[in-house]
Amino acid sequence: MNPLLIHELVRAALLEDLGRAGDLTTDAIVSADTRAEALLVSRAAGVVAGVGFAEAAFRALDPDISFAVARGDGHAIGAGDLIARVAGRARAILSAERVALNFLGPLSGVATATAGIVRAVAHTRARVVCTRKTIPGLRAAQKHAVRCGGGANHRFGLDDAILIKDNHIAIAGGVTSALGRARAAAGHLVKIEIEVETLAQLEEALRAGVDAVLLDNMGPELLREAVRLTGGRAVTEASGRISPDTAPAIAETGVDLISAGWITHSAPVLDVGLDIG
Amino acid sequence: MNPLLIHELVRAALLEDLGRAGDLTTDAIVSADTRAEALLVSRAAGVVAGVGFAEAAFRALDPDISFAVARGDGHAIGAGDLIARVAGRARAILSAERVALNFLGPLSGVATATAGIVRAVAHTRARVVCTRKTIPGLRAAQKHAVRCGGGANHRFGLDDAILIKDNHIAIAGGVTSALGRARAAAGHLVKIEIEVETLAQLEEALRAGVDAVLLDNMGPELLREAVRLTGGRAVTEASGRISPDTAPAIAETGVDLISAGWITHSAPVLDVGLDIG
Amino acid sequence: MNPLLIHELVRAALLEDLGRAGDLTTDAIVSADTRAEALLVSRAAGVVAGVGFAEAAFRALDPDISFAVARGDGHAIGAGDLIARVAGRARAILSAERVALNFLGPLSGVATATAGIVRAVAHTRARVVCTRKTIPGLRAAQKHAVRCGGGANHRFGLDDAILIKDNHIAIAGGVTSALGRARAAAGHLVKIEIEVETLAQLEEALRAGVDAVLLDNMGPELLREAVRLTGGRAVTEASGRISPDTAPAIAETGVDLISAGWITHSAPVLDVGLDIG
Amino acid sequence: MNPLLIHELVRAALLEDLGRAGDLTTDAIVSADTRAEALLVSRAAGVVAGVGFAEAAFRALDPDISFAVARGDGHAIGAGDLIARVAGRARAILSAERVALNFLGPLSGVATATAGIVRAVAHTRARVVCTRKTIPGLRAAQKHAVRCGGGANHRFGLDDAILIKDNHIAIAGGVTSALGRARAAAGHLVKIEIEVETLAQLEEALRAGVDAVLLDNMGPELLREAVRLTGGRAVTEASGRISPDTAPAIAETGVDLISAGWITHSAPVLDVGLDIG
Amino acid sequence: MNPLLIHELVRAALLEDLGRAGDLTTDAIVSADTRAEALLVSRAAGVVAGVGFAEAAFRALDPDISFAVARGDGHAIGAGDLIARVAGRARAILSAERVALNFLGPLSGVATATAGIVRAVAHTRARVVCTRKTIPGLRAAQKHAVRCGGGANHRFGLDDAILIKDNHIAIAGGVTSALGRARAAAGHLVKIEIEVETLAQLEEALRAGVDAVLLDNMGPELLREAVRLTGGRAVTEASGRISPDTAPAIAETGVDLISAGWITHSAPVLDVGLDIG
Amino acid sequence: MNPLLIHELVRAALLEDLGRAGDLTTDAIVSADTRAEALLVSRAAGVVAGVGFAEAAFRALDPDISFAVARGDGHAIGAGDLIARVAGRARAILSAERVALNFLGPLSGVATATAGIVRAVAHTRARVVCTRKTIPGLRAAQKHAVRCGGGANHRFGLDDAILIKDNHIAIAGGVTSALGRARAAAGHLVKIEIEVETLAQLEEALRAGVDAVLLDNMGPELLREAVRLTGGRAVTEASGRISPDTAPAIAETGVDLISAGWITHSAPVLDVGLDIG
Repeated sequence: MNPLLIHELVRAALLEDLGRAGDLTTDAIVSADTRAEALLVSRAAGVVAGVGFAEAAFRALDPDISFAVARGDGHAIGAGDLIARVAGRARAILSAERVALNFLGPLSGVATATAGIVRAVAHTRARVVCTRKTIPGLRAAQKHAVRCGGGANHRFGLDDAILIKDNHIAIAGGVTSALGRARAAAGHLVKIEIEVETLAQLEEALRAGVDAVLLDNMGPELLREAVRLTGGRAVTEASGRISPDTAPAIAETGVDLISAGWITHSAPVLDVGLDIG
Repeated sequence: MNPLLIHELVRAALLEDLGRAGDLTTDAIVSADTRAEALLVSRAAGVVAGVGFAEAAFRALDPDISFAVARGDGHAIGAGDLIARVAGRARAILSAERVALNFLGPLSGVATATAGIVRAVAHTRARVVCTRKTIPGLRAAQKHAVRCGGGANHRFGLDDAILIKDNHIAIAGGVTSALGRARAAAGHLVKIEIEVETLAQLEEALRAGVDAVLLDNMGPELLREAVRLTGGRAVTEASGRISPDTAPAIAETGVDLISAGWITHSAPVLDVGLDIG
Repeated sequence: MNPLLIHELVRAALLEDLGRAGDLTTDAIVSADTRAEALLVSRAAGVVAGVGFAEAAFRALDPDISFAVARGDGHAIGAGDLIARVAGRARAILSAERVALNFLGPLSGVATATAGIVRAVAHTRARVVCTRKTIPGLRAAQKHAVRCGGGANHRFGLDDAILIKDNHIAIAGGVTSALGRARAAAGHLVKIEIEVETLAQLEEALRAGVDAVLLDNMGPELLREAVRLTGGRAVTEASGRISPDTAPAIAETGVDLISAGWITHSAPVLDVGLDIG
Repeated sequence: MNPLLIHELVRAALLEDLGRAGDLTTDAIVSADTRAEALLVSRAAGVVAGVGFAEAAFRALDPDISFAVARGDGHAIGAGDLIARVAGRARAILSAERVALNFLGPLSGVATATAGIVRAVAHTRARVVCTRKTIPGLRAAQKHAVRCGGGANHRFGLDDAILIKDNHIAIAGGVTSALGRARAAAGHLVKIEIEVETLAQLEEALRAGVDAVLLDNMGPELLREAVRLTGGRAVTEASGRISPDTAPAIAETGVDLISAGWITHSAPVLDVGLDIG
Repeated sequence: MNPLLIHELVRAALLEDLGRAGDLTTDAIVSADTRAEALLVSRAAGVVAGVGFAEAAFRALDPDISFAVARGDGHAIGAGDLIARVAGRARAILSAERVALNFLGPLSGVATATAGIVRAVAHTRARVVCTRKTIPGLRAAQKHAVRCGGGANHRFGLDDAILIKDNHIAIAGGVTSALGRARAAAGHLVKIEIEVETLAQLEEALRAGVDAVLLDNMGPELLREAVRLTGGRAVTEASGRISPDTAPAIAETGVDLISAGWITHSAPVLDVGLDIG
Repeated sequence: MNPLLIHELVRAALLEDLGRAGDLTTDAIVSADTRAEALLVSRAAGVVAGVGFAEAAFRALDPDISFAVARGDGHAIGAGDLIARVAGRARAILSAERVALNFLGPLSGVATATAGIVRAVAHTRARVVCTRKTIPGLRAAQKHAVRCGGGANHRFGLDDAILIKDNHIAIAGGVTSALGRARAAAGHLVKIEIEVETLAQLEEALRAGVDAVLLDNMGPELLREAVRLTGGRAVTEASGRISPDTAPAIAETGVDLISAGWITHSAPVLDVGLDIG
């Protein structure tokens, strides 16, 4: 992801948490020259994502902090595993702790959720991709976490690829017309995908020419037929209620991609804690 | 919450999604003067939160949009229920759809998760409160969603109340010392809460005088004893692995508050969709 | 205060002063490699506040500046006393001088004004507190300066405590109703204070239960009676036209707090200068 | 002043005051549909400045607010005089009240302080000017307030004119050298002023050619001689400890300008209140 | 382009031009209630781009301005042709004039330059595309202007497509290796283009599979051969020193695209003026 | 120029180019620990401006970059000349390359264009000055580039000098009236210039007293007469269609300044490249 965004996001989160008065508790109890060492430790098994955010949080409050990564982004970890060791001013460590964890926990949660689906379909050729159903402000961070979990990225926004949905098709008056308008407007480095709900729409799209087809909410039988019909003429993406349980049957239909909103909008946090030693 | 933040957050989310080039798909397919009407509809039962964010998203792209709320923040809804009706420029509706839903879904998810615990403890006197384990950038919005779900708010940040945790106690050299330093520094409108892990610590804290005690990770038996020991001298808050399943037994111990990080960091989205009519 | 705000405020002030073209005078006259040493010296007796802002101003224009604090925030100083010694690029020192002094002078002015009242009531048990009558943008900095002068902090904003004023009481239809609504909405870490103008209102507030009472514009006689009536059931705060002259009589009534808007909205600057050696 | 800055400054001040949670008190007590009318009234005699800021504060929280100005910027007012009448949503009026007053009071304080000196020297030809000793972030607003009080503006920053001070002269190796370097670098629309402490320096400056001379900390006798020596060849500005008491004697020396830092860095607030009717 | 960016860019430009003190000239000479009408008129032949920016500039200083577009973005105009008619507060029109023209002139310059090349190659099948050689801060605006001139857009940034350049190939150790790494990392909606300098590299790229090839600095003969060799297996883009003079010979080689940095980094302004009537 | 602006502008440009996903190409192909060395080399003869911007771009992505300037701002260079040598992380060099060049090329283009006119009038006493016809957001940077090319700066904005134009004169009802209003409002460090189109207007302006006169679109004969008529009573500035070709004849009329919008709004880029060694 764009590395400059880490700094921006962490700074905004610290301003949000420290507010005007700063950390009332720590400033009252801990003297400015007390030093401490702490461990970022996972309380559960999962995949790490967001270590750079955690480091940036501590460093923003103590530029001289020492931060040694034990298991960085993309590593699978078990409960009790060390992620990183922090040492420096105790005030900085205590005041930045929650912000560091509020990035590390949810982003590792995304990576872990992604890895769960990736594992479930590892016996197939399907890749797991994310969607634009992300938390406002955290899109690039969450998409990075998806990659940490072994997934691949879909569009980052409305502006980096064309994805024609049912409402666009309805307004355009059909698949062919929608694809025609899209192709006329698209630059030569812009790919075009279209959402189809029936095999008839799929055939129409393939005839018109398209880079990828989004097979929305189709059951395994229909998906299998869609893959066969497509015959490699476009990338096939299955979407709709993908979970580790439902993913295998969908992936076994031969689709190229299965996309899951759940991994970014509803992944439970990975429980990570900070232990002061 | 601070109403000015809605505008700031929505604008940032639209800039994130529209990027530099804007909505390539919609701009290619939908003409500037096409108008549309759409319904924000829930696909599942839950509690609404974030309707003001959705409205702000549409309005940012079409100042003349019509937005009529059917079931606003705090309303319980069932699958298929209408939340709001939008009418205006089709481009604005399609381009703002995902941002609107990315606020409405996750915030309603927080409200729904909160309501689930609130219901589970409705036969007790316990109130459900949130924590600082929130998504970076969305704290005020998520805390608002907790209230929509019937919960109450804990601290909004490190700066609006004192909450002494185990690490603070360790550095201060004990509960009494930590509370003494906190009281000396606290303004007269700052409340003080302390996290205790044993009845001995609880007794020490109550003797030193404190507004609230956080009873961390205690089982129901211990909690019951802690509540009896406290005897109304402080607000009692139980925390640690609260879920709709575990909440009743904890609430029945007589604690004043049960706090759950899960409702803000891991609540699944409420599935809300936009249907163009 | 939140340490991240220092950087933000200083940067904004430098952008304000340097504008587009930068320091025309210094850039024309002083070569880029000229070095200088300078002393921040007080021209009058007072209490220091804002040294961290001054340092940040010089450092923003010369990251390698040397800045040695002689008498830091909270120190009482006399005319001619050294506050800090700066050494580095002459251009940086001259271009940042005014911004450094525009923080150091007014903030030390706030600390000095506060200390004046604190001294005047030192023979009583009253603490001196500030208000929300602060300079826009400088609230956290001014509240910090109040603490440097020996005062304590009131609310930092509308969002960290409840303070019910006359207009709220009027709209609610009375003290009891206003307090009832406030208590129902307040989180467990939010204190509630109410402004009362008569002993009858005071009695009503105490009966309803409240953390603190703001005794507005009462004379010493009435204040004394209010303190007696309160009998320790709430923190008592006297406000209204507090100055070093009027403060003693008010503090001697036994109130817990005396609050003064004057120390933040009208404190004269402490005259601090920069002498290049 | 730049009118866009009013919006920026007011918005930042509201974000500072409302924080994350917003106005806890008002939101708890006043319903969203309650309406109110209020009067901005002066509690003392003075000169108004900053009415546009007050209006912007109310309007930011209620775009449909009615705001009728009775005595606008630059008007002299007495105690009890109406400045403006506000009507609209009660929540908006109560939540924006303090921010509105925190601009209106201090800016009117600057205007009033300026007017005091202007009146004191009205029998002379001297104009009263401000300095760069302003509150960080409020320079343009304070300079506007100086004009409301009948004063004139000095430089707005380091970038819109050249003002050579003692330290510049020392580094340049003398008045003539400093002026030479300045003239060589200055654009044709940049004026040059130099601070002189002796008549010898003054003579040297006038010989070298300069637009204005800052006669720093000279007594009336010396000033009179300096004015005579200058003989209209440059604008003469007297500075140093100007107050309404000291100003007449200085102005009577015949200087063109007297500059006072006090009117921007230490002017007491004009007491303005908001009365809800 | 993203419509929210227009507001952001115009606001920043007005803050840059109005500075702290605002429009000294207009505020001194024109009363606040004077009204005026003005015409935005082209002084030369060209293609219009940026009318929305001009409107936003006037509207920022007078929300009630009337702005009637005669010839909007993408229209070809001659010297003397009316672009838009503005009516409203004279101060707003005069103070925003330069900012409005500083967008309208350079953006129309980009559109006009683009149209010049488009016309020069109209007898061929080649489309004209822009590059990332844009003015910092204005990329989306300039890319929009390119479309107004009949051109098409290349990448908007480093993040919306992969373009492998000579340095990437050198570090990867060859075309095939670079393409392999790129394909492994690319999401399914990310296209891949590679810069080649020889026919051997071109062959290698086509064998490895690629969406587009950038034929850098090849002469017409070599281009013709490259097009033949490619045989429709990838989009062909010719780049390097494209001007209206050189473009026809290059376009006649049969390439799909010719890309020109000149149209965004060096296009002369279209002379547009504002005539007050 | 204000050195803080360099950091702000470069950061914004990097955010614009790197977007959400960052540099897809470089991140896919170049490993994080690859190091590289690169040369910033001019492809054409010209004058350098903007080296500090280039350095800031590389440093933002690699704080430990080594950046050695060979020919800094203001140096005349030939084709093939080295400007600076960069060494550090290869990813940082490749990802920042375009942003660095997008500042260095256009700013050096401004310097080169300026130097061209400066050379053309070197046999006269005329200085070359810029205008406010600058690229939005880049005014201070472009004005700095003009100085690098040997030119001088006109106003930086509407707020640092008064320049009365034809529309102001028309609204004021004449030259004398406009100058009177301007003088009454102007601070003592604000210079006043007026645009005149006839000798009659010039005479009227000189009689009223003015610092500079802008002789707009006058031919050499008329200019010569205007200079003679002025007789040193004001600075004379000739404007209108100034190019290296037309400049000598205009400068030979004896005017003090010739101002050219072309050097900032239409200067072609200086072709600068980055060669990785």
